[in-house]
Amino acid sequence: MALHAVIMAGGSGTRFWPLSRSAQPKQLLTLVGNRTMIQSTVDRLGDLVTPERLLIVTGERLVPAIAEQLPELPARAILGEPCRRDTAPCIGLAAFQVIRDDPDAIMAVMPSDHVIQTAEDFQQAIRFAAKLVEEAPQRIVTFGIRPTYPAESFGYIERGERLKTGAAGANNCPAAYQVRRFREKPKVETAREYVAAGSFYWNAGIFVWRAAAILDALKKYEPEMHGRLAKIAAASDTTDFLQVFRKEFEAITGKSIDYAVMEHAEDIVVVEAPFRWDDVGSWQAIARLQPQDADGNTVVGKHLGLRTEKAIVRSSDDHLVVTLGLKNCIVVHTPDATLVANRDDEESVRQLVQLIEELGWGKYL
Amino acid sequence: MALHAVIMAGGSGTRFWPLSRSAQPKQLLTLVGNRTMIQSTVDRLGDLVTPERLLIVTGERLVPAIAEQLPELPARAILGEPCRRDTAPCIGLAAFQVIRDDPDAIMAVMPSDHVIQTAEDFQQAIRFAAKLVEEAPQRIVTFGIRPTYPAESFGYIERGERLKTGAAGANNCPAAYQVRRFREKPKVETAREYVAAGSFYWNAGIFVWRAAAILDALKKYEPEMHGRLAKIAAASDTTDFLQVFRKEFEAITGKSIDYAVMEHAEDIVVVEAPFRWDDVGSWQAIARLQPQDADGNTVVGKHLGLRTEKAIVRSSDDHLVVTLGLKNCIVVHTPDATLVANRDDEESVRQLVQLIEELGWGKYL
Repeated sequence: MALHAVIMAGGSGTRFWPLSRSAQPKQLLTLVGNRTMIQSTVDRLGDLVTPERLLIVTGERLVPAIAEQLPELPARAILGEPCRRDTAPCIGLAAFQVIRDDPDAIMAVMPSDHVIQTAEDFQQAIRFAAKLVEEAPQRIVTFGIRPTYPAESFGYIERGERLKTGAAGANNCPAAYQVRRFREKPKVETAREYVAAGSFYWNAGIFVWRAAAILDALKKYEPEMHGRLAKIAAASDTTDFLQVFRKEFEAITGKSIDYAVMEHAEDIVVVEAPFRWDDVGSWQAIARLQPQDADGNTVVGKHLGLRTEKAIVRSSDDHLVVTLGLKNCIVVHTPDATLVANRDDEESVRQLVQLIEELGWGKYL
Repeated sequence: MALHAVIMAGGSGTRFWPLSRSAQPKQLLTLVGNRTMIQSTVDRLGDLVTPERLLIVTGERLVPAIAEQLPELPARAILGEPCRRDTAPCIGLAAFQVIRDDPDAIMAVMPSDHVIQTAEDFQQAIRFAAKLVEEAPQRIVTFGIRPTYPAESFGYIERGERLKTGAAGANNCPAAYQVRRFREKPKVETAREYVAAGSFYWNAGIFVWRAAAILDALKKYEPEMHGRLAKIAAASDTTDFLQVFRKEFEAITGKSIDYAVMEHAEDIVVVEAPFRWDDVGSWQAIARLQPQDADGNTVVGKHLGLRTEKAIVRSSDDHLVVTLGLKNCIVVHTPDATLVANRDDEESVRQLVQLIEELGWGKYL
């Protein structure tokens, strides 16, 4: 059973406004290091999958930009959805494509915009998950991150019994557990209970399963969605393909894979992630992931700070940002828009983006 | 005796960085209203002087930009100094030019970058000062602003006896006093004493005198400076003029008119300014001079604020500045540099400009 990788790259990343825009969302940005998020995601796969077994699913508008960032990929490796319908249809679409040439395919599904280190740890973890799937063909494997604070922005996975046989019984392998339950993004009080309990993980949104198994699950729990995806797959070699694709895909009710499948499926295993993980959910993350100067400032681009502490500054090599007498500030400069925010207020960037839209200033989005 | 106006426009205005630059100092900026500071200064004169009796003295590099902003002026109305030598040589140069065609000329000398309202009040005040000068040919008239706080950034004028005869004895004229003493920019404790005493004014840097009188004073107190200025004046119709001008002017030791003359001269009168005055010394001034929104924000250009209070934002109509969760902040966007400062820290902008120079980033200055 050969391993395939599916990278989900449909996110809009409004939290990184004004750097992220509708035409250049987070996965296309260089936020950490010198490669874009999606380039790093592909780099991280190493030789885990052969190039013809890599599939990126994104919005159709982003296909050219992604192709430009990943010139080594063949055109067929990038699939553009005609509209956004959340993760379940995206995964179903990918599963149908993968299974066409390889009915036994095992799929590793992952977001395109997280930081995961090291690549070796990640690859080993995926290989381990693939073994767990080989042992039980209908099994779904997820990855859980040990929570470090009561985050409200992640879903949680409650673990049950530890797996002790087969691959999970080998030496030096990551801990793997049956999943007791998937939990939606909680309020902070509930999140605190989860963290205190010690048996909850953050859901990293990385899955390993047989393509056939996830399609079976979609057929069972989301028959209408499955039916439309099957029609799209059946049309794939016909001249009507684009028409069918658009019509059927648009008719699907958007749903996340968690709601569509995870909350119902039976044999789900969570592997405690043996890699460093960060979802890079906001500018704050940049301060976690980049080195800081002596005053705690995190800077990309040309900056001069006087009495400036714990700032996050993002500019370019040409545009000088000067900060004076500021603490805990975020300054992001782009050619047509600048954000200056208090770090503690940063969650509101999404609200800002909505406001900008309402004001009719869509050209800045 | 005809009235002439001399506008001193040599300032560098570093406190308005990044909007002010060496090639575009404060007097060339539109900081309040829709005219630049120097345009407003010329507008304010109204029909106080005829166009051929207006002279602007500036740095030679700024002559083209000033000519562009004031297309109605003849070329000879703008005099470019080859280098900066403070106000005394600038005033002497202007006096020599004015006296050439009009030995009895009365000169009103004023900065190019202050806000003064109303124009009518200003014109009446200058006319009144001219009368005081007509009564006493060697007299120097200055304008004093009633201090509203113990400013450290202004020189002070201590008043003596009130004038009660002649023009100063007329009805409805401003109060005029003999000057007891000019005081340099004080420390705040001294400034507090001045304000408490009630007999001190801020020195507005506006003077009225006969051109012949100020030249006599320069000859008496700064004979070397006067000698060099006289040589420049003598060369004015010769082919050597530019050479002589540069050589002699560069050889002058720079000095302010306060140090060179005011602290020594005998018959100095201070008129309590009957106009509204603001030196627009820093971004803070913009908040005094422009209307604010309900949250106390002062905005020029495209801005969206969320939980933003008492901010001063300066951008353009194209560049969107978004502020989030900020109090007392200054944000100034220009195409190649952005300043984000705490309002309480704003005095340090000059220090910043120096630092930028030291870092070799002169292209931003």
